[in-house]
Amino acid sequence: MAFPIDHIGVVVRDIQAALPFYRDRLGWEVVGREEQSDVGVKVVYLEGAGTTLQLLEPVGPGGIRDHLEANGEGIHHLCLAVPDIDAVLPLLAPGEVVPVRIGGRGRRACFLPGLHGALRIELTEAVSSPAQSED
Amino acid sequence: MAFPIDHIGVVVRDIQAALPFYRDRLGWEVVGREEQSDVGVKVVYLEGAGTTLQLLEPVGPGGIRDHLEANGEGIHHLCLAVPDIDAVLPLLAPGEVVPVRIGGRGRRACFLPGLHGALRIELTEAVSSPAQSED
Repeated sequence: MAFPIDHIGVVVRDIQAALPFYRDRLGWEVVGREEQSDVGVKVVYLEGAGTTLQLLEPVGPGGIRDHLEANGEGIHHLCLAVPDIDAVLPLLAPGEVVPVRIGGRGRRACFLPGLHGALRIELTEAVSSPAQSED
Repeated sequence: MAFPIDHIGVVVRDIQAALPFYRDRLGWEVVGREEQSDVGVKVVYLEGAGTTLQLLEPVGPGGIRDHLEANGEGIHHLCLAVPDIDAVLPLLAPGEVVPVRIGGRGRRACFLPGLHGALRIELTEAVSSPAQSED
C-alpha cells in the first residue's frame, strides 16, 4: 500500500511571475485557482502529464508566509492522496493528535507531524465530499 | 506538450536513517541503488504508486554536499522525462549552453540553468541507452 502523490506544493512569492515558465514554456495547464483565507494563501493548480503542482502565494499571516520568510521560495510539501484520513493517520502518525481541516478543493486534509526524511507530507482525501464534484 | 515527472530528488544526510519512513511506513519500494562518484552522491530510488523518489546522500565534494550544508535536508529538484534533451533544451533554455552528463541510471541528463519559479529542474532522457536495460 503506497499512496499516490496528489500534488506537489510549491511556495512562491508571486504566482503571476512564476506562471509563465510552467504554463507557457513547460506546457502545464492551469486547472484551478482558489484562496484559502484561513491559512492566508492564494493557490493555483497546474497539471502536466499526470502531475499536479500547487503554487502557494502568501496573502496573509500563516504558515506559508512564515515559510517564505524563513526559507524563501521552493517546494513546501508532497501531498499524498488517501482514501480515508482517519483510517490512515493511526498508521502514519501513531499516537499523535493531528488536526484535520478542510483544505484545497474542499477536501479533508492534514499535515503529518514533523518532517519525514526532510519532507513535509500532507494527506488529502481524494474522494470528494458530497458537496464537491470531482473533475 | 508537458513532460512527465521522472523523479523527485531529495537531499538527505543519511539514507539509511530516512529509509524506514518511506519504505516501512509509507510502503514505497526500494528499486535501485547507485553511486554517482563524479558528483559525490550515493543514491537510492524508491517507487510508490507511480512516483519515483530519489534520495541523495553526499559522500564527497559536489553540489549535493554544498546544498546540504547551505540548506539542510529537503527536496532538491524535480526531474522531467524528455525524449531528446538536445531537441528540448533550445525550447526550455533558449540561448544557453547547458552541460549534459551521464546521470542516474546511465541516462543523459542536465539541469536547467537557474531556478524556475523556485524549482531546480533536471531533464533526463527516459529512453535508455543501448548499453542500459530498462526495468
